[in-house]
Amino acid sequence: MSNIALYGNRHSGHSYKVKLFLALTNTPQNYQTIDLFQVRAERPALFRQHARFGEVPLLIMDGQAFVQSNAILLHLSQTLRTMDGDNSARINARIHEWLMWEQSRLGFSLPNLRFERKFKTDTDAAVLSWLEVRLRNDLDVLNTHLGGTDNFVASTAPSIADCSLAGYLYWLGDAGLSVKEWPMVQAWLGRISALDGWAHPDELMLSAAR
Amino acid sequence: MSNIALYGNRHSGHSYKVKLFLALTNTPQNYQTIDLFQVRAERPALFRQHARFGEVPLLIMDGQAFVQSNAILLHLSQTLRTMDGDNSARINARIHEWLMWEQSRLGFSLPNLRFERKFKTDTDAAVLSWLEVRLRNDLDVLNTHLGGTDNFVASTAPSIADCSLAGYLYWLGDAGLSVKEWPMVQAWLGRISALDGWAHPDELMLSAAR
Repeated sequence: MSNIALYGNRHSGHSYKVKLFLALTNTPQNYQTIDLFQVRAERPALFRQHARFGEVPLLIMDGQAFVQSNAILLHLSQTLRTMDGDNSARINARIHEWLMWEQSRLGFSLPNLRFERKFKTDTDAAVLSWLEVRLRNDLDVLNTHLGGTDNFVASTAPSIADCSLAGYLYWLGDAGLSVKEWPMVQAWLGRISALDGWAHPDELMLSAAR
Repeated sequence: MSNIALYGNRHSGHSYKVKLFLALTNTPQNYQTIDLFQVRAERPALFRQHARFGEVPLLIMDGQAFVQSNAILLHLSQTLRTMDGDNSARINARIHEWLMWEQSRLGFSLPNLRFERKFKTDTDAAVLSWLEVRLRNDLDVLNTHLGGTDNFVASTAPSIADCSLAGYLYWLGDAGLSVKEWPMVQAWLGRISALDGWAHPDELMLSAAR
């Protein structure tokens, strides 16, 4: 069995993506929290050494370091051979497309609008508006894609694309929007919440042992 | 040999990433341009059918459709087994990390600032400033990473991570910045430009036969 250490933060949906994958696949890990308000030079030595961009999450697996949440998900699913779309080339291509879409769209607009609205108070209204237009458009795209089916994002089974896209969505209220406006997204989040091992980020990111 | 059709646009660095990969690997393709100002319903039927997000680039390979530039690069490198970091797990992890970083950082800040400065005239100054701060930070990160070596981004050889990160950088001037401020980035772009098959996007994206 692989030796896995995860460095994350309770406010980071990017960390939650990885923690959620580990929870849903019942994968043991040593989870350590990083205080993002701590002076960088005072953070744990291993984190400073390996976090190439100075960001959470950081995964150390069998002595090797991996950064960028979606790249970590790719590595974990390929290595552990789980939540990988059954290794079908067709479904893998869909998973890659949604990981990339998440990275530049929903995984950009949502965390940034949430950050500006929840943790800052001096952001220019034009920036907030620009971000909110993007976020609403992204939610429209996801809502349309999910449609009226019982499917997950890339196939009938959950995959790392679902872990990724759901990363910040349980905190949509922090960004000032309600998921009720996007009922297909809401229903899909409900399907994820019903999976064995799921927990809300506010709970999961605090639990050291899970 | 695979049958490849690429739908792109001359102003799209995301299209250029894929076109550049095909040029550097001397891979024949049927290249078709999409007019992004054309009414969506009047675009070619194949494009409307397969471009899931309505965006270029779209790749049709052996009858299957692929979207999202970085996902297309992953698919091409895995299928054609070239520019894939020699299929080393360690280098592949680095490639994935840089593809994800590009997707949410440089590949976000640069095309958006370029679009607002080159193609629009009514963008709020606060939005331009917010984007420029991000772009300058992203260029600092890449410049530091490249350092004083002769390396490419993920290893000593060029990979799809280089195609991706270089996508918009030959147009940095359109965003109002000069690459001279980031000399390691400038030198690395020079190394890419020296590769067999390279051409500037203004030339490559026009040539139907290449």
